[in-house]
Amino acid sequence: MLDGLIISVDAMGGDDAPDIVIAGIEYFLKHAGAGRHARFLIHGDEAALAPLLAKAPKTLARCEIRHTESVIAMDAKPAHAMRRGKGTSMWNTIAAVKSGEALVALSAGNTGALMAMSKLILRMKEGVQRPAIAARWPHQEGFGVVLDVGANLECDANQLREFAVLGEAYYRTLYKKKRPSIGLLNVGTESLKGNATIQAAHDSLSCSKIDLNYIGFVEGNDISMGDVDVIVTDGFTGNIALKTAEGTARLIGKFIKGALQDNFFSKIAAIFNLPALRRMKKRMDPRLFNGGVFLGLNGVVIKSHGGTDAIGFASALNVAIEMADSTFLDEIERTLDALHDEDDNLEIHIP
Amino acid sequence: MLDGLIISVDAMGGDDAPDIVIAGIEYFLKHAGAGRHARFLIHGDEAALAPLLAKAPKTLARCEIRHTESVIAMDAKPAHAMRRGKGTSMWNTIAAVKSGEALVALSAGNTGALMAMSKLILRMKEGVQRPAIAARWPHQEGFGVVLDVGANLECDANQLREFAVLGEAYYRTLYKKKRPSIGLLNVGTESLKGNATIQAAHDSLSCSKIDLNYIGFVEGNDISMGDVDVIVTDGFTGNIALKTAEGTARLIGKFIKGALQDNFFSKIAAIFNLPALRRMKKRMDPRLFNGGVFLGLNGVVIKSHGGTDAIGFASALNVAIEMADSTFLDEIERTLDALHDEDDNLEIHIP
Repeated sequence: MLDGLIISVDAMGGDDAPDIVIAGIEYFLKHAGAGRHARFLIHGDEAALAPLLAKAPKTLARCEIRHTESVIAMDAKPAHAMRRGKGTSMWNTIAAVKSGEALVALSAGNTGALMAMSKLILRMKEGVQRPAIAARWPHQEGFGVVLDVGANLECDANQLREFAVLGEAYYRTLYKKKRPSIGLLNVGTESLKGNATIQAAHDSLSCSKIDLNYIGFVEGNDISMGDVDVIVTDGFTGNIALKTAEGTARLIGKFIKGALQDNFFSKIAAIFNLPALRRMKKRMDPRLFNGGVFLGLNGVVIKSHGGTDAIGFASALNVAIEMADSTFLDEIERTLDALHDEDDNLEIHIP
Repeated sequence: MLDGLIISVDAMGGDDAPDIVIAGIEYFLKHAGAGRHARFLIHGDEAALAPLLAKAPKTLARCEIRHTESVIAMDAKPAHAMRRGKGTSMWNTIAAVKSGEALVALSAGNTGALMAMSKLILRMKEGVQRPAIAARWPHQEGFGVVLDVGANLECDANQLREFAVLGEAYYRTLYKKKRPSIGLLNVGTESLKGNATIQAAHDSLSCSKIDLNYIGFVEGNDISMGDVDVIVTDGFTGNIALKTAEGTARLIGKFIKGALQDNFFSKIAAIFNLPALRRMKKRMDPRLFNGGVFLGLNGVVIKSHGGTDAIGFASALNVAIEMADSTFLDEIERTLDALHDEDDNLEIHIP
């Protein structure tokens, strides 16, 4: 079924590109089940890629190099990247989705540039004001999806409502849950909490006739509890919440390590606890949650963390395969249509 | 030295008041070192308090009940609470600081009402636009201070700059660190990141001639790393970051518990690891970080978490004692003066 799933990969994006990109694909092909039949269009400097691929036989057998001369710097400003973008590895990675050669684009490069180029090349879905970046978030039962985690620092109520629709379709199609619950991130769950934007988004989601399972406001601690599937927020708050959780997890990891090496007996005892603790660590490993999905475009673009390693890049490839193999783009079209029908009808009633 | 440190306590605030308030004082007096000489003005319903105090001899010996007829409901709107506020236990708790009878006020009641009343009764320090709530945040080396964590959902650049000054004075006087570092919470550390408000706050903190150890932007994951002492943000973001971290810590705690009961061997081994893991848990126990301090008023008011238990309430009492025994109010006056001198001089230079 997966034969012919083609992923377009920016080989030059990320702190340790192109090495970790090729190592990531190699790791993915060795370990991934569903993605084994995938093939890769790899965009980048052929002279740098050829020796790496010579050492990565599984990847070599499955990929095609598309040579590009130039690269977007990790610290380039989006506007500058746009002017100089054409012909870069990042540009060509996205363009392969536009042309239909690939189903999904993946880059670990500069987030701002990737978003700006994706908007320019793929264009937003009709009626979507701004795309959002969706991140998966581990919780007790599995994981939730948080959006936006960095594309839009300031959002109005309509944008937040659109994020709810985008996130819901994403969760529903990828994780096969019929009516995923949606919450709006706020400083309290009482209906009077929050600023005017959040209040307005809450009102319009509460009154919507679209079949959304909107459960109201949720708080920061609810994200990890697993009581809500899709958490909607602006890109500023979402980004800070995500990184705060990562930092907290890392801190506790260090405390645990210290605790298990506390004294002779605890060191010995730790040997028996290690396998289970390692499994736990794996459940929280941020590398396994790598891969932010740009939602709201005519095509799927995935952003890997710039500083990730091969295992992290392989996780982002997993997300790419899941997206390529899903009906997300059709689903989102259907829900957006319903949303805009509702807006049209609303306008009729307003004097 | 601590003789005569008088703390004004709202006995009726909190989900399980007045029981946990009295139990909290009792716990505090049993366990606290520095606070043993403190005395308490307890505001609330005498009929409810008398039987509790009969069972709490240490507290009874150290406190004076001030009877009040009425109470602010936990879900009251601040405006409503203000109109009906006079004569409630919360009002009288704050008024005792205004009158000079007590050095610090403490309540586990409704946050919005407590802030509104505190502003009305104590007034803001000259030149402060809005008070902030400061929370302590555990990290690798000890803890940092994050503000605002919920008083102001939207803040302009001047307010963020004031929070930096308030937080710095708080950290410096309480934790005896000469030049605590200050960071501005943002979605990235590069100087171009963030919205206009954050950019303006960054510029004014960077150019300030006041002796602040401002280190620039910090990200969510930096809070737990301990590389920065005072983290400045608006109340919306701060509140969500704080609760997200709490939720993450709770989730990992559950995972650890599960991991240690994984099988027969890990259960036995866990016995040897438990003392160290318990110490670790204690370092992260949110009850031990209970007690948000209202900064920027002519007097100190402390907000305990409404749902805390006796141990958590005792932690907030510890903060109250530390504040009562500090030179914070003088220090903050000095730094605010420097800040406003700078603003005055700036105005001269602007045509």
